Amino acid sequence: MHDVLTDQTITHVLVPGTFDPITFGHIDVVRRARRLFPHVTVAVAESLGKNGTGPTFSLQDRVSLAREALGDIDGVEVRPFTGLLVDFANEVGAGAVVKGLRAMTDFEYELQQADLNYRLDPGVESIFVMSSPEYGYLSSSVVRQIASFGGDVSEFVPDNVVKALKERFKC
Amino acid sequence: MHDVLTDQTITHVLVPGTFDPITFGHIDVVRRARRLFPHVTVAVAESLGKNGTGPTFSLQDRVSLAREALGDIDGVEVRPFTGLLVDFANEVGAGAVVKGLRAMTDFEYELQQADLNYRLDPGVESIFVMSSPEYGYLSSSVVRQIASFGGDVSEFVPDNVVKALKERFKC
Amino acid sequence: MHDVLTDQTITHVLVPGTFDPITFGHIDVVRRARRLFPHVTVAVAESLGKNGTGPTFSLQDRVSLAREALGDIDGVEVRPFTGLLVDFANEVGAGAVVKGLRAMTDFEYELQQADLNYRLDPGVESIFVMSSPEYGYLSSSVVRQIASFGGDVSEFVPDNVVKALKERFKC
Amino acid sequence: MHDVLTDQTITHVLVPGTFDPITFGHIDVVRRARRLFPHVTVAVAESLGKNGTGPTFSLQDRVSLAREALGDIDGVEVRPFTGLLVDFANEVGAGAVVKGLRAMTDFEYELQQADLNYRLDPGVESIFVMSSPEYGYLSSSVVRQIASFGGDVSEFVPDNVVKALKERFKC
Amino acid sequence: MHDVLTDQTITHVLVPGTFDPITFGHIDVVRRARRLFPHVTVAVAESLGKNGTGPTFSLQDRVSLAREALGDIDGVEVRPFTGLLVDFANEVGAGAVVKGLRAMTDFEYELQQADLNYRLDPGVESIFVMSSPEYGYLSSSVVRQIASFGGDVSEFVPDNVVKALKERFKC
Amino acid sequence: MHDVLTDQTITHVLVPGTFDPITFGHIDVVRRARRLFPHVTVAVAESLGKNGTGPTFSLQDRVSLAREALGDIDGVEVRPFTGLLVDFANEVGAGAVVKGLRAMTDFEYELQQADLNYRLDPGVESIFVMSSPEYGYLSSSVVRQIASFGGDVSEFVPDNVVKALKERFKC
Repeated sequence: MHDVLTDQTITHVLVPGTFDPITFGHIDVVRRARRLFPHVTVAVAESLGKNGTGPTFSLQDRVSLAREALGDIDGVEVRPFTGLLVDFANEVGAGAVVKGLRAMTDFEYELQQADLNYRLDPGVESIFVMSSPEYGYLSSSVVRQIASFGGDVSEFVPDNVVKALKERFKC
Repeated sequence: MHDVLTDQTITHVLVPGTFDPITFGHIDVVRRARRLFPHVTVAVAESLGKNGTGPTFSLQDRVSLAREALGDIDGVEVRPFTGLLVDFANEVGAGAVVKGLRAMTDFEYELQQADLNYRLDPGVESIFVMSSPEYGYLSSSVVRQIASFGGDVSEFVPDNVVKALKERFKC
Repeated sequence: MHDVLTDQTITHVLVPGTFDPITFGHIDVVRRARRLFPHVTVAVAESLGKNGTGPTFSLQDRVSLAREALGDIDGVEVRPFTGLLVDFANEVGAGAVVKGLRAMTDFEYELQQADLNYRLDPGVESIFVMSSPEYGYLSSSVVRQIASFGGDVSEFVPDNVVKALKERFKC
Repeated sequence: MHDVLTDQTITHVLVPGTFDPITFGHIDVVRRARRLFPHVTVAVAESLGKNGTGPTFSLQDRVSLAREALGDIDGVEVRPFTGLLVDFANEVGAGAVVKGLRAMTDFEYELQQADLNYRLDPGVESIFVMSSPEYGYLSSSVVRQIASFGGDVSEFVPDNVVKALKERFKC
Repeated sequence: MHDVLTDQTITHVLVPGTFDPITFGHIDVVRRARRLFPHVTVAVAESLGKNGTGPTFSLQDRVSLAREALGDIDGVEVRPFTGLLVDFANEVGAGAVVKGLRAMTDFEYELQQADLNYRLDPGVESIFVMSSPEYGYLSSSVVRQIASFGGDVSEFVPDNVVKALKERFKC
Repeated sequence: MHDVLTDQTITHVLVPGTFDPITFGHIDVVRRARRLFPHVTVAVAESLGKNGTGPTFSLQDRVSLAREALGDIDGVEVRPFTGLLVDFANEVGAGAVVKGLRAMTDFEYELQQADLNYRLDPGVESIFVMSSPEYGYLSSSVVRQIASFGGDVSEFVPDNVVKALKERFKC
């Protein structure tokens, strides 16, 4: 049995993602992580999303949108990163990764990533929190899809993101 | 959006279950929970398992076996409970429930329970940790099945439980 | 290709179940079915639930609770039945069965039943409607579980069922 | 509880998709939808498929192939559309969207789309019918894959589509 | 990496199950197993089914029904067994277990059993074959359910089983 | 019932894939297949992976890497192929296709491919073996992802592949 017990408990965690753009579902996960741990670093990945398509917003824009949306939460920091997640966790001193769970497909993808991270560095724990039912199937790609057709996304993303999506899709 | 943020982070969590009997998979989850939070209460449910069958060991025996197996972990306490899990969480002052995730069927059952607990008391957070791959499909019922046929279960449960199973199944 | 097209469309459907007891989730499905078709027969099965345990309420009580709860919806009738569902469908002249879909496990069970009904009588169509997100993981067994511990179930079932559960579990 | 009951039942539904190209599985769903409702509009989406790849056939060709394949069914109309599905439903006066359910992955994708449509317009109902077992895993992409290798697809698509695939893949 | 390679390939396999009673789906799996390996032992388990309910037919009856139904296949033997499956495999000299895969729930259950057998004896391989689509959701419990209501099961089980079910359910 | 029984059992099977690049998980499946059957042909597909992205290594490189990695296993041959898998199976005289099963998403994709192959040629059987738990979520794409960030992949792939990945990603 791998012994993961240490003298001190974890106080700093990562909430990683592409955040293209940040949604109320993401913010819900960050708030839950923050309720569990004093320090939360929102890690915005430079790399491609899981479906292989390039991001709609630049890394800098994704970081800015997340910072504006999360600005009022004490103990939460937003930072871009590239490379392996476990390396970034060690760089900033985070002991765990927190992800929100939604649908079944999510679950498989997230367990695959968690297993990968475990094999790369068993010292970085993977934690899952349950998304609120009202954000059940919400995702950045769904938000982009609606916005690209001129649909109203104010129920899914904060005001600064609504504005950014309008500019991006010229509507 | 339901605001779950409070001034202070959670320091006490529950790891609930039937523990009929406690396995290395359970112990792995308790150790992970303990690594994340200073105080962990292992909550042994008096009620029936999810498949409706009565427990093999009495509540008192299940508590004793768990206490012996977890005795060396500082900050971990084993307690029996009956009634609603959220009521017990509030009674002992725990702010979250930690469960291990294994197979897909688990996932559905656990999300159902988490959703139920959320509706009964949104103040009690549900957290999932990934079980170690070596405990992937391990469960108490599988252990009981092997033991009932006289198979060797020392790879799955601690020594005190091996002994209790042998006595229980007279082999 | 099996040709299911006929000259006239279906106007009468069944919403089958054990309804032990009826919940807001069931009522949501009945209302959706009624919006789709002029005549809806809620078919309360005498037989055992899918997990093999006997019902908590008698068939007569389950029918009465459902009738009271659905009394205000025009075109909806509640009837007990025993035997094969396709036989009951033919007996009352219903051309389709409507079920609500919730979690993944549900999906498998429902597809199995639908496949069975298709093989027994391809003339009885199976239709699924999506349950409202707020009833996502709601089930009669969860409601009974909460009620048996004295928890508040008024968020999940109508008033007459709240009362019946209190009497049943003496709390 | 969201009250979806209205005085009159739904008589016009959409069967949306990319239909790239239409298969016997699609035709099976359209026939089932038509058996349930007097008016069915097959809505051919201009937009990209769920896996982000561009369509093999042009929108005009996909509409033509579907029209030829469905030409003999009274009450069924084929129309191209762009933009949000709920907007198109309201434009043509359809009260529900009918989809066929096949494999598990489908299920997740379809529930996500249904949840999205519900949030955008709760007045548009989502309905699922069970595909015939013989079309269980049939999909347009599988058909294109076989055709691109010169395999025989006459078991999966109507004659006009067989011919179009031969021309498209020059075989 | 666990090295499972040996000098000689496997020539004898088990097809285990409760066979309560044997169905065309089971027979399909046995035939597929026999096509892959020269010797197939159909292992009829004395123990309870996966849902904890007692069998409908006695062990002796289940063995007899399977023997009659499989009597014409050379190289196939039917034998009752009790205890751990891996012990029985070693007793008869079988090097692998062959199971049919149907629905998703099956998959989880079968992987759990395969993982268990692997941990108990890594020398016994687990192999899965795909059931024919026409037996997709067929199971003994569904057959018993139909027969208990007097439905026609001749599409699902061989003649000797049809007769046995009629006697059992007096219809 | 489709009769798949023939006089002689299968002695030659395919293990198909993109092998971009070959991993310890693939090698585990090949060894298991070889334990079951005397002749195993590892069939390296020229075509695109399931997620539509082009391969990282050329077909020739993928064949070479697999040949080096599997060179010491008697009865195993590595060959490139293009076109339909069932055509290649018939060309080399293989009677079955062997795949490893890992996560749930895999399962759906593999069953879809198996169903497709069955419809194209019912004489080619599909067989699944359970991957070792330690390769549970291992995939070529995960290996490429780690290697592209300069991570250590020696736990996942043989030495020759480690070297090839380093050259490919210049690290």
